[in-house]
Amino acid sequence: MQNYGRVTPRILSRLEGILGSENITTRPEELLCYSRDSSIFFHSPDVVVRPRKTDHVVAVMKIANEERIPVTPRGGGTSAAGSPLPVAGGILLDMSGMDRILQIDLDNQMVLVEPGIVCDALNEDLTKAGFFFPPDPASSPACTIGGMVNTNASGNRTIKYGPTRDFVLWLEVVLPTGEVVETGSKTLKSVSSYDLTRLIVGSEGSLGVVTKIALKVVPLPEAYSTALFIYDSVESLARAALRVRRAGMVPEMLEFMGEATTRVALEYAGIKGIPEGNFMLLDFGGSRESVGTALEKGVALCRQEKPVYFETTLDQAYRQSLINARKAALPALARLKPSTVMEDCTVPPTKLPEAAGKIERIPKDLGIEGFDLGNFGHIGDGNMHPTFLFDSRLEEHRRAFLKALDLLYGGIVLPAGGSVTGEHGIGLIRAKYVGIEHPSTLSLMRSLKHLFDPNLILNPGKGKGGPYPLT
Amino acid sequence: MQNYGRVTPRILSRLEGILGSENITTRPEELLCYSRDSSIFFHSPDVVVRPRKTDHVVAVMKIANEERIPVTPRGGGTSAAGSPLPVAGGILLDMSGMDRILQIDLDNQMVLVEPGIVCDALNEDLTKAGFFFPPDPASSPACTIGGMVNTNASGNRTIKYGPTRDFVLWLEVVLPTGEVVETGSKTLKSVSSYDLTRLIVGSEGSLGVVTKIALKVVPLPEAYSTALFIYDSVESLARAALRVRRAGMVPEMLEFMGEATTRVALEYAGIKGIPEGNFMLLDFGGSRESVGTALEKGVALCRQEKPVYFETTLDQAYRQSLINARKAALPALARLKPSTVMEDCTVPPTKLPEAAGKIERIPKDLGIEGFDLGNFGHIGDGNMHPTFLFDSRLEEHRRAFLKALDLLYGGIVLPAGGSVTGEHGIGLIRAKYVGIEHPSTLSLMRSLKHLFDPNLILNPGKGKGGPYPLT
Repeated sequence: MQNYGRVTPRILSRLEGILGSENITTRPEELLCYSRDSSIFFHSPDVVVRPRKTDHVVAVMKIANEERIPVTPRGGGTSAAGSPLPVAGGILLDMSGMDRILQIDLDNQMVLVEPGIVCDALNEDLTKAGFFFPPDPASSPACTIGGMVNTNASGNRTIKYGPTRDFVLWLEVVLPTGEVVETGSKTLKSVSSYDLTRLIVGSEGSLGVVTKIALKVVPLPEAYSTALFIYDSVESLARAALRVRRAGMVPEMLEFMGEATTRVALEYAGIKGIPEGNFMLLDFGGSRESVGTALEKGVALCRQEKPVYFETTLDQAYRQSLINARKAALPALARLKPSTVMEDCTVPPTKLPEAAGKIERIPKDLGIEGFDLGNFGHIGDGNMHPTFLFDSRLEEHRRAFLKALDLLYGGIVLPAGGSVTGEHGIGLIRAKYVGIEHPSTLSLMRSLKHLFDPNLILNPGKGKGGPYPLT
Repeated sequence: MQNYGRVTPRILSRLEGILGSENITTRPEELLCYSRDSSIFFHSPDVVVRPRKTDHVVAVMKIANEERIPVTPRGGGTSAAGSPLPVAGGILLDMSGMDRILQIDLDNQMVLVEPGIVCDALNEDLTKAGFFFPPDPASSPACTIGGMVNTNASGNRTIKYGPTRDFVLWLEVVLPTGEVVETGSKTLKSVSSYDLTRLIVGSEGSLGVVTKIALKVVPLPEAYSTALFIYDSVESLARAALRVRRAGMVPEMLEFMGEATTRVALEYAGIKGIPEGNFMLLDFGGSRESVGTALEKGVALCRQEKPVYFETTLDQAYRQSLINARKAALPALARLKPSTVMEDCTVPPTKLPEAAGKIERIPKDLGIEGFDLGNFGHIGDGNMHPTFLFDSRLEEHRRAFLKALDLLYGGIVLPAGGSVTGEHGIGLIRAKYVGIEHPSTLSLMRSLKHLFDPNLILNPGKGKGGPYPLT
């Protein structure tokens, strides 16, 4: 790690002079809140700063760059990877106060927002007008658009609409030096620049602080049709998903939960009467005329893999409760054990049956009493979230967890031609695997980080910007 | 411009030793062929090299980097911007010989190709299997996938499917130093790296030479429904297009040709019986059940702007002939005058009626005898191709052309919040306007260029890599 400057009283008073004392805190109980995200890591900042406008961010970055103080931007703090944790202390930049919708321009299919706006809050406004911003992570009630841009977030609807990346038109970004740049164009099509927009998208706050975002929004489907399947093996479930894709169907969602996850998630969501087994949700969106036919065709394909149970619905409330159950997978699993660590991996769809089976067997392969796993995810994209359930207070469990990560990423995902993260990002948890997946570009990524951030003050130690030793 | 090394006999014989004499030429008549693209510029290379595999490209780049020889990669040579022209001479890297389809893996919705494969040739193979690569420039019978990646090409179907950028999963790239890197992941979802893939996409061959490409492919729509409208003003046509978008419809295509272009394009395509006026093509793709209803709704919306003529069709052959007419806009216009220069601009859709009207009046504003204009483009995306028709042998016309560019980009497009290129790239023709559209990121773009290409040997003098003086 770099030799960083310290947050001295002099620096604190400079920050106060710019942002006002109401937007700065060093109270231990507040610092504690900013020391965690949804991962297992814990890193405390020295001071939390809450900018209200771009100028605030500029001033903070200038001071930080001058004094070599680490700065870590944070949105909703929903990362399961440790991305917004200040591993080197310093300034925590809480962007959640910059949460205005600046412009909704549906004639041009564009919205202009500040990064702190929460995903569901934005979509609440948009859906009233028949439009939406499609990326839909399970954390959508709490995650911010800024966080989604910085992780290139996805979720249930990416199979049809693509990830956040495909919707970002333009960004205002404060570089680590305090310089403000605008990337891209608010128009719908532009190739007049190197794609700096997408270089920032998914960079996990390591290249610049995003202060304004122009997003493309799209019309909501007119109608939906939905089917729920229960399979007795995850392999047959994965083969059913493959059949749907191979037939050239593009569902709105194609989601899954393994048997253990299904049990707790359905209970959590209060859905009764579904038999035990592996859960698959197949949802079509489109015109009223087309969704019924699509569902019929999709169900016929999925029945070829002999589900033990299936049902279809056109009822919107029941559909939503099934989606809620799927979105509740993580909180439902989290009730089972003291420690819940959600991982994130993608394999080519054809490798799903084998990979899902192998993942299911990780706890058995490790053979550690009480170390368990639930699995769920966006099966249609080949994207799964194996979630390890254990007790991190036990040394044996901590060791088993690190071994489980190696089995998952090194033993299953990468040999299958997959990726160590489909949508959550590298953060701290997967830093070790970036160089294994991307040996040829690691040095180029480091050079890019140095180009944008010569003093390495912005979100230091995070995956793409420079691996942080996990152990 | 840099002080570059010369292609000496010693260098030629080194190149011959690596590629074989059959893959190298300095014959003046061949050099002449490589001195032009579809723009008005002319720049001759010193030698043309035709690599057959990645190793060839590596060897060429190593020699070039050592000896400071400029290298300009070229695909199908269909650029209307001068992007593949060797402004500093040196080595022309003709990538069209690396044209193999290496893998079609429809179960994983992925194809792996070499950059020289022609767009229509790839889609011919894919459509047989019910899939396709959606970006569809008018030059699709001749342009290469490598060229499309390097310009982030779009075309008719981008309104629904997005540009080339959204389909590139993974790239093999030879950096200017000769180093080979692999960017991205062949899986459908990955956020494990800075987005180097999209930094290369649209970089017009200025950051690296793309030698292999993994593309995501998607299923073909089951059916189409099509309407043709003729409006007496381009303003009412643009307002009709806006109505379709604003109603939340997502057509397969929403294309237009101004009156003068319509006349010659319909004649070129042999379509008779359509009255004079501004042409709009509205096309829906989807399930058999939905396309009829969509067309009905779309036609009702467009009729509110009082077309002087409209017709609908479900006949696939007639639909294709209408698309062919639209795709023939440029070659049809090119028959009218000695010089035809197609420009490329995007404005926010709501600015279309005003911008299209102003563009139409440019020749009148200039008032130079014989200096004329045709307009057409992807009206649904706000993307137009004003095409100047003149005689570049006349000094007065050459001056008028430069003034017309300033009127178009500086006087109409940028003040409307638009972009100076929606899909064709900067090349030589729009280099002057990059810094005007992107003042805040110009120096960052230059730094990126230097990071990838420290000796500035790759496609020197092109827009994003460093403006080339047009005049």
